[in-house]
Amino acid sequence: MTVRAAVAGASGYAGGEILRLLLQHPEAEIGALSANASAGQRLGEAQPHLLPLADRVLAPTTAEELAGHDVVFLALPHGQSAAVAEELGEGVLIVDCGADFRLVDPADWERFYGSPHAGTWPYGLPELPGARDALRGSTRVAVPGCYPTAVSLALFPAYAAGQAEPEAVITAASGTSGAGRGAKQRLLGSEVMGAMSPYGVGGGHRHTPEMIQNLSAVAGERVTVSFTPTLAPMPRGILATCSARARPGVTAAGLREAYDKALAGEPFARLLPEGQWPSTAAVLGSNAALIQVALDEAAGRIIAVSAIDNLTKGTAGGAVQSMNLALGLPEDLGLTTIGVAP
Amino acid sequence: MTVRAAVAGASGYAGGEILRLLLQHPEAEIGALSANASAGQRLGEAQPHLLPLADRVLAPTTAEELAGHDVVFLALPHGQSAAVAEELGEGVLIVDCGADFRLVDPADWERFYGSPHAGTWPYGLPELPGARDALRGSTRVAVPGCYPTAVSLALFPAYAAGQAEPEAVITAASGTSGAGRGAKQRLLGSEVMGAMSPYGVGGGHRHTPEMIQNLSAVAGERVTVSFTPTLAPMPRGILATCSARARPGVTAAGLREAYDKALAGEPFARLLPEGQWPSTAAVLGSNAALIQVALDEAAGRIIAVSAIDNLTKGTAGGAVQSMNLALGLPEDLGLTTIGVAP
Amino acid sequence: MTVRAAVAGASGYAGGEILRLLLQHPEAEIGALSANASAGQRLGEAQPHLLPLADRVLAPTTAEELAGHDVVFLALPHGQSAAVAEELGEGVLIVDCGADFRLVDPADWERFYGSPHAGTWPYGLPELPGARDALRGSTRVAVPGCYPTAVSLALFPAYAAGQAEPEAVITAASGTSGAGRGAKQRLLGSEVMGAMSPYGVGGGHRHTPEMIQNLSAVAGERVTVSFTPTLAPMPRGILATCSARARPGVTAAGLREAYDKALAGEPFARLLPEGQWPSTAAVLGSNAALIQVALDEAAGRIIAVSAIDNLTKGTAGGAVQSMNLALGLPEDLGLTTIGVAP
Amino acid sequence: MTVRAAVAGASGYAGGEILRLLLQHPEAEIGALSANASAGQRLGEAQPHLLPLADRVLAPTTAEELAGHDVVFLALPHGQSAAVAEELGEGVLIVDCGADFRLVDPADWERFYGSPHAGTWPYGLPELPGARDALRGSTRVAVPGCYPTAVSLALFPAYAAGQAEPEAVITAASGTSGAGRGAKQRLLGSEVMGAMSPYGVGGGHRHTPEMIQNLSAVAGERVTVSFTPTLAPMPRGILATCSARARPGVTAAGLREAYDKALAGEPFARLLPEGQWPSTAAVLGSNAALIQVALDEAAGRIIAVSAIDNLTKGTAGGAVQSMNLALGLPEDLGLTTIGVAP
Repeated sequence: MTVRAAVAGASGYAGGEILRLLLQHPEAEIGALSANASAGQRLGEAQPHLLPLADRVLAPTTAEELAGHDVVFLALPHGQSAAVAEELGEGVLIVDCGADFRLVDPADWERFYGSPHAGTWPYGLPELPGARDALRGSTRVAVPGCYPTAVSLALFPAYAAGQAEPEAVITAASGTSGAGRGAKQRLLGSEVMGAMSPYGVGGGHRHTPEMIQNLSAVAGERVTVSFTPTLAPMPRGILATCSARARPGVTAAGLREAYDKALAGEPFARLLPEGQWPSTAAVLGSNAALIQVALDEAAGRIIAVSAIDNLTKGTAGGAVQSMNLALGLPEDLGLTTIGVAP
Repeated sequence: MTVRAAVAGASGYAGGEILRLLLQHPEAEIGALSANASAGQRLGEAQPHLLPLADRVLAPTTAEELAGHDVVFLALPHGQSAAVAEELGEGVLIVDCGADFRLVDPADWERFYGSPHAGTWPYGLPELPGARDALRGSTRVAVPGCYPTAVSLALFPAYAAGQAEPEAVITAASGTSGAGRGAKQRLLGSEVMGAMSPYGVGGGHRHTPEMIQNLSAVAGERVTVSFTPTLAPMPRGILATCSARARPGVTAAGLREAYDKALAGEPFARLLPEGQWPSTAAVLGSNAALIQVALDEAAGRIIAVSAIDNLTKGTAGGAVQSMNLALGLPEDLGLTTIGVAP
Repeated sequence: MTVRAAVAGASGYAGGEILRLLLQHPEAEIGALSANASAGQRLGEAQPHLLPLADRVLAPTTAEELAGHDVVFLALPHGQSAAVAEELGEGVLIVDCGADFRLVDPADWERFYGSPHAGTWPYGLPELPGARDALRGSTRVAVPGCYPTAVSLALFPAYAAGQAEPEAVITAASGTSGAGRGAKQRLLGSEVMGAMSPYGVGGGHRHTPEMIQNLSAVAGERVTVSFTPTLAPMPRGILATCSARARPGVTAAGLREAYDKALAGEPFARLLPEGQWPSTAAVLGSNAALIQVALDEAAGRIIAVSAIDNLTKGTAGGAVQSMNLALGLPEDLGLTTIGVAP
Repeated sequence: MTVRAAVAGASGYAGGEILRLLLQHPEAEIGALSANASAGQRLGEAQPHLLPLADRVLAPTTAEELAGHDVVFLALPHGQSAAVAEELGEGVLIVDCGADFRLVDPADWERFYGSPHAGTWPYGLPELPGARDALRGSTRVAVPGCYPTAVSLALFPAYAAGQAEPEAVITAASGTSGAGRGAKQRLLGSEVMGAMSPYGVGGGHRHTPEMIQNLSAVAGERVTVSFTPTLAPMPRGILATCSARARPGVTAAGLREAYDKALAGEPFARLLPEGQWPSTAAVLGSNAALIQVALDEAAGRIIAVSAIDNLTKGTAGGAVQSMNLALGLPEDLGLTTIGVAP
């Protein structure tokens, strides 16, 4: 089975990572590559690491260019996906790496994004209860945000097992590629090297309602989330440190058992052996999510930590994993749990 | 007034930073410099950035070498300070950058350090209520740990004002110099660049009881602390993200007022203007602690963030600030709130 | 055809990279993994990025452990390969990532390494004239040094075409993994981040005779090499800036033609389009060598620049490429020109 | 003597560094601060590391704002200084950190900058023969480029002593702040971390004629320069690796003697002890230039290496050093040879 794939937004970081993975996917054939400002450019200029595609030329992002493929990956700014999807019609698999179709509650969408809600598509985090089945055969996929991927994988086992109180406190550190490729002074190398700084503090980050949605669904009750993202001096990677009060009676052994059970058989979400903690360095370019959990008995809290590559498992890898499910391919086809280190 | 200063442990990172600050202190005269394994070496080899001292030779760390100074800074491994202090006697100001004399409760010490408790000295964080007075004229100073400095400064205003529930949840990212200069594989540049990883998760970090001690004293009740340190890919800096449930009735304005009041007049601990968040990049080499606070109303939590240079305000700058107080000099003499950026 | 491979030195950086590539090689089956100090450890501790091998246990490096494979990769300290090779005998392909068998002239070896010369094996840089043929069917391969790989690929086309005077001046910047995984203070993250520094200046670096050997063979005359390596604040990558006086009559067009011709058809050594310069970022984890050349007409010099990943094309990728040739497999099997960026 | 100083371009990296140094200068009083796009902003937003100036507001860059000071520092884009200088008139010291008045030969200027030549001012590199005297009492200073500072200091002793052939080959690595603070995609943290890449290869960099001018003046004959700059993954620092054929009869001892003599008594340009090589890490925030030299006897070449902080000795520190000379103050007033490390 050959899957002909188009990528809209091929000059950005997410688009580049989708291409990197498709190039290594045994069934994918790379079709149209489109961009906005970079249209007309050789891909070798925008993505010099993708040598096999160096001579391909970026087309403008139009429905015409994207038509005629088996799957279209959208790596576009928020708010543009709905129109493209409508033009492409129902017969094609659309995997949207933007936020437009992630949230179920229109009020959440409007509060955080300030525009009318476009709808809700099957959510591309197969590890969550029920998500894998919803993705199988679907022609639409909403790829999760990078932070919600890291956070949901770290905490859902505790909520699924009823071991955590419904108030999560989360700090996550992200590499700079999570902020995109647009030229902004605050993202200059000179500014970010040597710097750790928070942003969107106090509940303002747009990924917060997505985390609440995921954890509440698993917990069966409303989970509040206090989320603080920080920018770390590295190109890629998210380290999410997630915490919640342990429910009475929770033990370290019981907690570990819950995680073992929730992650059993998962190809990419992995509980590390006791005593080993996740590092973003171990997942560079890999689709793995490394997870560890501890019970802080003195403080009465569960501490769950996950490390992912924000561009791989956090975006493009999650997208390809969902594509595989949607198309009936083996879920892990073309994806790897091998990172590039050191 | 000329202050003749000796530094024990001059070949390490803390010792080097003490020397950097003393070289810029108008009243300090640098006397004996001692080391263990590096004794006999030119300082130019161990600390090539301290050109004015390049030709000084490191002596072995003995009471004889350290005697005859007005102040002795100890930057030694844990457990060695008590013996040195006893040999030096009462007449000299001893500023201990190690942990030995920080904790009040011997049980805390023994649980986290596994050896008999040496005692408790005046605590070198002048910003805490009562601390400044205790340091004035003292001949002994216990310099705080770098994480407790960042965390206590971020949270004490909320506890002093009775606005936070006594359960703090803290994630802090530290530059690698906080782990010292000993050659360890996990601290190699190849391992840490591109890597965020946690350690001491679940309550095990030795700085935890020190945070509890500080916050509980301010709160007037036992504060539990769930503390997760992470290692960040930068040489210096701590970003502490600290959170606690807001007590009923706390408002954003009231919170800001509490911080304004608690930090009023402080030469180094500074509340940033609203909307500006601390970055470690802004405090490189500076003794400033930049602080910001927000109320996450949806989650009902206070989020306080601080940024310090772990070697300056977090160690050597705090040490010199305390020395100034102990000797009756202006508290900010020889210290600066100007960082080196970008 | 299944190739059963053993790796000696599997806990180091070169060994880890060999394993990363073998895991993605369609014909390789990973057999014995050995180490010295780390013997007995789970590979998951030493190489946490290689999840599929996490539960494998490191054996001690003995001929017994390494026997019974089709290929044995040696990633050992200098001077240990000869004894292992002798014990393994002639029937097995040995790919030595150490220096022991690279140099032809025993005097060069003795001057730079201070021990008796072990011999000379076919040299694993297939792009050099004649090298590819010598590797086909060989049971012994001497993998080039990382700097000689970068430098030889950048300059050999100019020497092959008789366009450069026989005095090369080279500065190369290497990521820290090139210095190995041994715990040394000067390689600590705190020391190397923010630091560029030279070492082995003035002709002392052990890779110098290897460069001279390669370039002289191509030029048909003795080429002197003035080589200055520098350590750069990044985990991986070499950028080699190589220069030589242009011979009379050399033109920019003629130079480009020479490079085009010398690199035509090469799967991994690639001349970039005019105006595009190599970056180490584009080859992270890739076996590509990106090359560009310019004629500085005012100075009368050829400037050739190459970028490689020191662990991939510079070590393990070159090793696998040579293994493929030795075993009669397609030269690029299991290798890629796709980097991980940003 | 109080020196009232204005800074035009205070929101950029050079302007910020000038302010950092002036804040620590005992005779300087900081007057007008101007900017272009950032006019109207609080300095605390643009330069959050300069706490003592946080509440100052940036004025637009006009002659009116800059009038009435003892010294005006210009940190403006090329081509704007002449007009400002004319408006300010002769009575005020103008220290221009731009390129406009560095080059003596109008043809050089026009070839590299493409606009009419504005003139030539005394050159702010006091270490060069004759330069110090020309700066004393001058009311105009052309601050050297950062690369020419590093390169000229590394090589002038060899040329002054007639020991080097007049063909210099230079590779230099610069931190990203050297490329300025304008938001450009290629300077994003995501692009530069982990990346070494060259630019302006083949003689095209605008600093080349300035190096030729400096070295030729010292050598008393035309020196050709082949200069390749590279961008390194660090915010600050230049490491210049400079090389030239040794003239017949030059010995290692004679070379060292020449450097010793040329740099004797210099407050900031320092020859390191034998065996110690410069690192950019040792000069962060310092005005020192660390220099070392070796004779590569096998290749017959002199290798001289220097490390500076591009923003300090390479720009703002050199500017303040020259201001001191111009105003008759001690040359090293307010400047330091102490770096911030690690």
